[in-house]
Amino acid sequence: MKVVVIGIGLIGGSMVLDIKALHPDATILGIDANENHLQQAIDLGVVEKAGTTEDLADADFVIVSVPVDIALVVLPQVLDAVGENTIVFEVGSTKLPICEAVANHPKRRNYIATHPIAGTEFSGPSAAIKGLFQGKTNIICEVEKTTFKLQEKALQLFTAMGMRIRYMDPQSHDKHIAYVSHLSHISSFMLGKTVIDKETEEQDIFDMAGSGFESTVRLAKSSPAMWTPIFKQNKKQVVNTLEEYISNLSKFKTLLENDDFDAIYHEMQSVNKIKEILNGINIKK
Amino acid sequence: MKVVVIGIGLIGGSMVLDIKALHPDATILGIDANENHLQQAIDLGVVEKAGTTEDLADADFVIVSVPVDIALVVLPQVLDAVGENTIVFEVGSTKLPICEAVANHPKRRNYIATHPIAGTEFSGPSAAIKGLFQGKTNIICEVEKTTFKLQEKALQLFTAMGMRIRYMDPQSHDKHIAYVSHLSHISSFMLGKTVIDKETEEQDIFDMAGSGFESTVRLAKSSPAMWTPIFKQNKKQVVNTLEEYISNLSKFKTLLENDDFDAIYHEMQSVNKIKEILNGINIKK
Repeated sequence: MKVVVIGIGLIGGSMVLDIKALHPDATILGIDANENHLQQAIDLGVVEKAGTTEDLADADFVIVSVPVDIALVVLPQVLDAVGENTIVFEVGSTKLPICEAVANHPKRRNYIATHPIAGTEFSGPSAAIKGLFQGKTNIICEVEKTTFKLQEKALQLFTAMGMRIRYMDPQSHDKHIAYVSHLSHISSFMLGKTVIDKETEEQDIFDMAGSGFESTVRLAKSSPAMWTPIFKQNKKQVVNTLEEYISNLSKFKTLLENDDFDAIYHEMQSVNKIKEILNGINIKK
Repeated sequence: MKVVVIGIGLIGGSMVLDIKALHPDATILGIDANENHLQQAIDLGVVEKAGTTEDLADADFVIVSVPVDIALVVLPQVLDAVGENTIVFEVGSTKLPICEAVANHPKRRNYIATHPIAGTEFSGPSAAIKGLFQGKTNIICEVEKTTFKLQEKALQLFTAMGMRIRYMDPQSHDKHIAYVSHLSHISSFMLGKTVIDKETEEQDIFDMAGSGFESTVRLAKSSPAMWTPIFKQNKKQVVNTLEEYISNLSKFKTLLENDDFDAIYHEMQSVNKIKEILNGINIKK
């Protein structure tokens, strides 16, 4: 088995670590625009050596795990170079722009659009971990556009990695993921900003921060190079969710200003059911 | 040693578990308005048996760990009943209203105002855990208003529990804690609300939620009975932080609408330094 991973970061790196564990005989080649990352990935044993475009023609799997703006450019080029039996998947957090970008590509049938809902706030080859995808959800879009035998090959791999598969059209994916992922990142970044800005006037604020604050700002450690193009590609949906979030915060502020603490109590009580919802998420893990 | 804990939840319960571990001969008595909680605390071995007001006169330590609105009523009554050698502390997330409530109490010197920055999103006696305060910060306000020998007794206990002590005036405490704790809770509750509201129209959103979403909404599991009075007592500071937060979110939305993705990149990049700040918090834990 021959695997080429293009962009060896948290997701691509973790994928090939799992593939190597499942298929010890697999040859894992890496391509990365950042030479330091490539060398680091080789040194860490995440990939065996550097790959080239020529390696795509007889590869079994090609994983495109680059920021979503780069994916729009790279994926069509990768499809140009792959062979008949190669299955290509990319793993970005937006699906509609990429599906549109390759809609009319002559080798569209060699591509499967996926979004494994997994990750941490860290990035780069050193962030790659084995077993990252165990129990996680993998959203697959437009599955019917992929050749059946290559679909099957990809699905067998995802299942062997421990992922649950969910099928969705790319529009719905991008709309829903704005709520449960993209908005969380903005909420976290702006919370971090609000406190950092205050700290410049008032010393020692962070000395008072506990695990609750840490949890809410964890995502503010995320990579701007990865997240800026996601927000750009999913702008309309992200703006909508942000409007709803700001509206809810503003209503809460008005309740506070009006001393309507009964309403505040009931607002919080009605959101408490997130406990059961999150327990559902935990069970899936 | 005789200890009375009034309000046997996460904080009060965890405190007496630590005290019992440090002083196995201590008698731990519990008082709770909720009879089920009291019985549960006895069954779990968090307290030995129920205490009464009479037990306060010869108690060594009295811990008042009740919602902050109840503390305003209970603390003066507790001070009325304690003996000369009793040190009373309460552990609420607001310090100015409580310090004002007992400012002229004849036994003010038997009270020490504290806020141990520790906790989880859970509540009740079953949420109590040993070692919760290890490495955590304990903010002490108006320390000079407590009798020296009782100060010393309390500080020895906090230190033995593994806490770092920080002294602060109650105004500064309430202002700063609004940023690193109270605002995080509102941000989390309103994020949960935004997604729950959407889920009523669109099914399966939560099926796509990963660990990032879970981290940002974790605090939305918190108790409304505990948090409503905190927001009430710290209303002015909380409204200020919420205004700054909403303003930052609105500016981010404007950048998105204007396609100013360079500015978005730089906004996120400048907040990334939260990594180092949070590493600082982790080291303290």
